[in-house]
Amino acid sequence: MRIDLNCDMGESFGVYTLGHDETAMPYVTSINVACGFHASDPNNIVKTIKKAKRHNLAIGAHPSFPDLVGFGRRAMAASHEEIYADVVYQIGALMGICKTEGLTLQHVKPHGALYNMAEKDSKVAAAIAKAIKDVDPNLFMICSCGSMMVQGAQNVGVKYVEEAFADRAYTQEGTLVSRREQGAVIHDPQVVAARVLTMITTGKVQTIDGFAVALKPQTICVHGDTPGAIDMIKAIRTSVVQEGIEVRPFSV
Amino acid sequence: MRIDLNCDMGESFGVYTLGHDETAMPYVTSINVACGFHASDPNNIVKTIKKAKRHNLAIGAHPSFPDLVGFGRRAMAASHEEIYADVVYQIGALMGICKTEGLTLQHVKPHGALYNMAEKDSKVAAAIAKAIKDVDPNLFMICSCGSMMVQGAQNVGVKYVEEAFADRAYTQEGTLVSRREQGAVIHDPQVVAARVLTMITTGKVQTIDGFAVALKPQTICVHGDTPGAIDMIKAIRTSVVQEGIEVRPFSV
Amino acid sequence: MRIDLNCDMGESFGVYTLGHDETAMPYVTSINVACGFHASDPNNIVKTIKKAKRHNLAIGAHPSFPDLVGFGRRAMAASHEEIYADVVYQIGALMGICKTEGLTLQHVKPHGALYNMAEKDSKVAAAIAKAIKDVDPNLFMICSCGSMMVQGAQNVGVKYVEEAFADRAYTQEGTLVSRREQGAVIHDPQVVAARVLTMITTGKVQTIDGFAVALKPQTICVHGDTPGAIDMIKAIRTSVVQEGIEVRPFSV
Amino acid sequence: MRIDLNCDMGESFGVYTLGHDETAMPYVTSINVACGFHASDPNNIVKTIKKAKRHNLAIGAHPSFPDLVGFGRRAMAASHEEIYADVVYQIGALMGICKTEGLTLQHVKPHGALYNMAEKDSKVAAAIAKAIKDVDPNLFMICSCGSMMVQGAQNVGVKYVEEAFADRAYTQEGTLVSRREQGAVIHDPQVVAARVLTMITTGKVQTIDGFAVALKPQTICVHGDTPGAIDMIKAIRTSVVQEGIEVRPFSV
Repeated sequence: MRIDLNCDMGESFGVYTLGHDETAMPYVTSINVACGFHASDPNNIVKTIKKAKRHNLAIGAHPSFPDLVGFGRRAMAASHEEIYADVVYQIGALMGICKTEGLTLQHVKPHGALYNMAEKDSKVAAAIAKAIKDVDPNLFMICSCGSMMVQGAQNVGVKYVEEAFADRAYTQEGTLVSRREQGAVIHDPQVVAARVLTMITTGKVQTIDGFAVALKPQTICVHGDTPGAIDMIKAIRTSVVQEGIEVRPFSV
Repeated sequence: MRIDLNCDMGESFGVYTLGHDETAMPYVTSINVACGFHASDPNNIVKTIKKAKRHNLAIGAHPSFPDLVGFGRRAMAASHEEIYADVVYQIGALMGICKTEGLTLQHVKPHGALYNMAEKDSKVAAAIAKAIKDVDPNLFMICSCGSMMVQGAQNVGVKYVEEAFADRAYTQEGTLVSRREQGAVIHDPQVVAARVLTMITTGKVQTIDGFAVALKPQTICVHGDTPGAIDMIKAIRTSVVQEGIEVRPFSV
Repeated sequence: MRIDLNCDMGESFGVYTLGHDETAMPYVTSINVACGFHASDPNNIVKTIKKAKRHNLAIGAHPSFPDLVGFGRRAMAASHEEIYADVVYQIGALMGICKTEGLTLQHVKPHGALYNMAEKDSKVAAAIAKAIKDVDPNLFMICSCGSMMVQGAQNVGVKYVEEAFADRAYTQEGTLVSRREQGAVIHDPQVVAARVLTMITTGKVQTIDGFAVALKPQTICVHGDTPGAIDMIKAIRTSVVQEGIEVRPFSV
Repeated sequence: MRIDLNCDMGESFGVYTLGHDETAMPYVTSINVACGFHASDPNNIVKTIKKAKRHNLAIGAHPSFPDLVGFGRRAMAASHEEIYADVVYQIGALMGICKTEGLTLQHVKPHGALYNMAEKDSKVAAAIAKAIKDVDPNLFMICSCGSMMVQGAQNVGVKYVEEAFADRAYTQEGTLVSRREQGAVIHDPQVVAARVLTMITTGKVQTIDGFAVALKPQTICVHGDTPGAIDMIKAIRTSVVQEGIEVRPFSV
């Protein structure tokens, strides 16, 4: 048994610092690198890719709507054509920087509002999937488990893996409980670690209302933006490794 | 004997239209495609690359300082590190879009103020050259004939070609006469065409003060932004072809 | 009887030119000036305000979502707090430029997707209305006739006027026929002019399906972005003036 | 005797936090508020102005070149016309937000590279001065003591005050020692506090090479961007107050 741990990285911008990249890097296997549309800038991407190389991480592009001030978290009524072009552009930019370090991309994971739209709308997901496949058919798309993203990816025929969120509660439909509802986010590292272990070993997770729902991720999304988040990554990794599960990039 | 005609393209942005790309494309062989920093946007780049494919043109990236409102024409005190990263990012973005059409890049030509700084400062030129070579050592850098750009390119060891400007007057030092001086820009298509022919066949051009100076370009920069400019391209191409000189991309 | 003719202006950006401002200015009475978020830049706003002064036009701010590449036409899930701040910022910026010419603002009219959202959502309209009133309670808000914008303006207690669209078909509910439907846009200048006259003199307009609906605008929105559009403005103005209706800014 | 302490504020942007505004506010009297071109966004400006109101601070606009990724620290070859328009726009935007809180602006202080250019070039300084005066002749321009900024301000006839930098070494010409030279920045709060006191009481300061040079500021620039910086502000304020010097905004 094996699992991948993916984490957003490289979200600083100009003089502004965000996240604890260097602290989190030793504990994750795949990273989603901001491409300049919701965060980061060319110089910061170069630095992030150099760090990722030192930590031997699998690298993915993390494209977003063009909304720096909103950190890509605001849904935008962009056309599928615009989404396609924006995603290709961002993948290409990151790929160019990876090439300067002799690295290749493993995957693409849409960010923020673009991710949320793709979860619910297979046509948006397909626009993203087509962008990924058209740039390089060897790239994987990271899709939210059982969402319309998977549908979009399948329709286009792009390679994909499914991800679950380590610290988020799920409904019986296998969808995320809205952050607005109580219990949506799980804060206890040990509880989160145990849930992740259950997902990997049984392919199921307990829903917020006590039922079991199928959830079989190839990668687990973790966060590195707070010191507490880093403790959670460590707890997940430790518990998984103790169980004899291999932690490595999903493509390797 | 052979020559390449290169022209800036894809400089529209959002709802804004600039240039006469489709009209100029049949007459040129290489194009310099705006990458979103001084002009263009991902959707417009996609459209430009599709057009370029139909016209079988050799494609180059046209990276700039990040200055959309100033069209990349304002010098910026960016560090060499920032210039390097900005150029890599823009080449990558364009490369990604080319890959969706199964195309590869031929060259990179810096735009506007970045070009002007590189002409005079071999370290700026070297930062650009290193960016190009690091992304892909098969890419050519287009350098202004006999300028510090050539020096920077040689220092880095990037492939390069030298370009001359069809409609600009030269000094005895082989540098461009400043646009502020009278006679700096030559407007008569026949005069321009004759000068281009002389450059190609003799490796020399008459300076603004009547002397001869060595100028041996592998590519001629032409403009496509006005109806008059298109007439000039046609005049150049016609005169060159009549002389039995082959017009094709410099890399082919 | 009197009417105001309002028109979007100052939508050029950097080297990019859009619209036929100088041609349209003699025929309209109020203008909505782009503030740099969907179009324009500080230098272009200065030029636009100088032109407006020469033509003695009443000036309004035309704030937008921050989406230059999408020309402010893409709905964004911005919070009411963000919309409020964005609108205040843009009004202030335009007001600052007006002060350099000794001019004051007459009104504010939201642009594009922001306008469309406010038409349907009185809370969005109220966020805009509050921004306007908080900057200066003498400013008018231009609202779409009978829409939720009017509701939002009334809830906040901002001064407002209602506008109708000269060249657009209306439903029996007094709302605009979607541009996607046939007959949504009326192209014949004489038909448009006659409709405008009917609105002003009778407070009614014929709907797309032949009924009459109440529509009593204080200002008519006209366009100046094509040569054809200018002909339409002239036709409207001529027909209105011939009928003895005074054409002047709604606030004077 | 009296003095004003001015400090840059409101330099956060979107999700990014910068500076320790709330910690520094109790100790300063005038603030220079980022206007969105090098830092900040409309929503953050609204929050900053609300905080400034609670602390009863005199407010100034802190306009910059349009260079968010470079934090306005990179010189740009903008024309005087562009600088004028950019400054007017930013003052207006900040003024609009101040009006929503019933506040007026006290001053304008250019930021970063724009400040540095104005220090050396009286024509750049005059473009800024004219922008300030044209928006509102009651506004003060903050100028670097004895620099070309003062010349530019005098040429235009704008109100101005001169500032000195609390923690920076000066040359015999009364100019700042370049940050690249050793001893350019003074880190000991007590030394800095003593220097400020000497400036205020004697109108002179000791130069880096041990001489005395005239320096008679009406306002002292302090920093609030690090915890150490806050200690320095406190040390300055304490020493000044102990000496019976009144600390209040220069305009009051």
